[in-house]
Amino acid sequence: MRKVAIVGVGLTKWGVRQATYKELVQEAGKALFDDVEGLEKKDVDSLFVGSALVDRLAFQAYPAPLVAEQLGIEPRRMIMRTEMACVSGQAAIRAAYASIAAGLSDVAVVVGAEKMNVPDMAEAQSSMAAVLDREWDGVNGLNAPPYFAMVAQRHMHEYGTTAEQMAEVSVKNHEFSATNPTAHFPKAVTKEKVLSSFMVAPPLRLLDCSGITDGAAAVLMTHGDLARKYTDTPVFIEGLGQASIGSLVGNLKSLTTWYPLKTAARDALAMAGIAIHDVDVAETHDCFTISEIMEYEDLGLCEKGKGGRFIEEGQSRIGGTLPINTRGGLLGCGHPLGATGVAQAIEIVQQFRAEVPKERYVGGEWGLCHNLSGNANDHAVMVLHRGS
Amino acid sequence: MRKVAIVGVGLTKWGVRQATYKELVQEAGKALFDDVEGLEKKDVDSLFVGSALVDRLAFQAYPAPLVAEQLGIEPRRMIMRTEMACVSGQAAIRAAYASIAAGLSDVAVVVGAEKMNVPDMAEAQSSMAAVLDREWDGVNGLNAPPYFAMVAQRHMHEYGTTAEQMAEVSVKNHEFSATNPTAHFPKAVTKEKVLSSFMVAPPLRLLDCSGITDGAAAVLMTHGDLARKYTDTPVFIEGLGQASIGSLVGNLKSLTTWYPLKTAARDALAMAGIAIHDVDVAETHDCFTISEIMEYEDLGLCEKGKGGRFIEEGQSRIGGTLPINTRGGLLGCGHPLGATGVAQAIEIVQQFRAEVPKERYVGGEWGLCHNLSGNANDHAVMVLHRGS
Repeated sequence: MRKVAIVGVGLTKWGVRQATYKELVQEAGKALFDDVEGLEKKDVDSLFVGSALVDRLAFQAYPAPLVAEQLGIEPRRMIMRTEMACVSGQAAIRAAYASIAAGLSDVAVVVGAEKMNVPDMAEAQSSMAAVLDREWDGVNGLNAPPYFAMVAQRHMHEYGTTAEQMAEVSVKNHEFSATNPTAHFPKAVTKEKVLSSFMVAPPLRLLDCSGITDGAAAVLMTHGDLARKYTDTPVFIEGLGQASIGSLVGNLKSLTTWYPLKTAARDALAMAGIAIHDVDVAETHDCFTISEIMEYEDLGLCEKGKGGRFIEEGQSRIGGTLPINTRGGLLGCGHPLGATGVAQAIEIVQQFRAEVPKERYVGGEWGLCHNLSGNANDHAVMVLHRGS
Repeated sequence: MRKVAIVGVGLTKWGVRQATYKELVQEAGKALFDDVEGLEKKDVDSLFVGSALVDRLAFQAYPAPLVAEQLGIEPRRMIMRTEMACVSGQAAIRAAYASIAAGLSDVAVVVGAEKMNVPDMAEAQSSMAAVLDREWDGVNGLNAPPYFAMVAQRHMHEYGTTAEQMAEVSVKNHEFSATNPTAHFPKAVTKEKVLSSFMVAPPLRLLDCSGITDGAAAVLMTHGDLARKYTDTPVFIEGLGQASIGSLVGNLKSLTTWYPLKTAARDALAMAGIAIHDVDVAETHDCFTISEIMEYEDLGLCEKGKGGRFIEEGQSRIGGTLPINTRGGLLGCGHPLGATGVAQAIEIVQQFRAEVPKERYVGGEWGLCHNLSGNANDHAVMVLHRGS
């Protein structure tokens, strides 16, 4: 099987952007071509586009050829859009990995993009509610904040997790995003500010929630033999895991243990031939503060129920057990659904290239990216390795 | 590289169905599990869902886990939805192929499904118009019928193609669909009926156009070593080609030559190591009668401009150069966007299994499937081989 590497990266500024979906894509594409010396448009044989809500929020179906056109490329091997709600970006990377490993593509661009801020924000909310089973859960108003609020309440009840511990996650991730100029929220916040912010869905306050953000991200991927044509620091994808469990909230086996994450992490680490404690830097899906706490547990970084203490002790900060979300996470960077998974991979690449500010530099050899989607019914994990 | 085979098939009745997206998916899933003796739910490690307009027309985003739940499977290797407008179904098969070939999946279900008939059919039309570039082409009303009408007008002007020749395509495909109980339009039509049907966009009349159809289709895919566990007649995917050219109609290089089809066909045939004249039976994307005529030409079955004569001479009928759309095509079966590409592959499998009525039986050894999407800016071609 051919090895597959990420060999180039491009990011837009994320935020409430006065920019259309197409403009965001152009911007990420330009950043990617600027990043990769010697990349010519004709080199790119394939395109994978991760976008979740483009049909409704940008009123643009079938975005893949449109993205190709914005980038000036004419893919002739594989071209597709992947959609998996909040996992859409990583799904695009996975589809590119499979195509390159299988020999169907040699050089692929992956673009994750989302236009979330629209004139009618009720439409945005209604579109996001459509991610859950419309007829059973969506109709009862169970979109993301109330669902993760239930998760948080239950976690507090079962394990004594506190609002203060959750707030610490937000503080940490905003500390990181403060040094990230592409972040939607590049500004530190205090614990007091988190704990006094607007109550969205008890116990989750505004600063426990990731933002509604426009943004795009792009990576260039190729196989092992070509990787060094484009960069001195290829980052190889060595492990992939994904698991899915039901769709209805009523069918999930637990609110407070994400079994699909345990499976996906185990599979991805096994494929890479490493253990979780070999990972040097990780990006996990902190759509809400409680999510990151549960990810500590279900990734196996601490015992079930000890995630609150893990953040309290600074174990997910630089110098701790495993620095997590050094980019600033979804809490600090915002969450343009399809772009998030791609931007996470970019953070790992930039860590390995030592292209991040020293305040958040970790470096190392092994990275891990995690995304979840919907009511946490699908989890995807990717293990990355710095080429040496 | 591992070989990849289709080893099971399942189809719903297509038409204006009193059934939701979920119900259509259940029905196709049941048909698939009924088809494959010995298939257990736990065998299925991956799921690929091809759906184009589900976000708008079924108001259901993120359909992949929902489909998994309807089928009672819990994928733990790869799960994603693929979207490429009318190529969405073949895109799902291609993603499954890549994942299986790359060793990321062993046993995958592919489901193509679309709910097109909704209470507000203006919404359906508006959603379909969103497939073209909204800001440039969509806003000017350039959805599918007017676009393919321009193509037809230009083809008539350049090559003398006639309305009678186009009508012959509809007659042939309805002749085939008349023996297909799953078809939306299982009834033969005369040339006179086609030529006197309602004028939709000159020169295209109602019976020159594929229908707005609800339906779903599913296939089971696995690698070469496992194929005979599930069937005595595995059908191997031996060639894949896809090419894309721009998005705006103004950027296409020609209305009457589909360069991406020429490229995709060349690549798919080269990968399979055969020539177009080795193909025994083919499914091509007859979204409109003119499309099939151009496909004869750009697949290399006849000279450019001679597609009208090709159908007139019966060369795409059984006994001719290459029997095309024996299933009944999009014209006879209807066109639930994400389901079409999967159903085409099923027709090839059923031809090789000799499971079609004798009136449309061809059999043979090599099959070809073709889809196009949007303003014909993307074409995908797949070459299938009967396992021996």
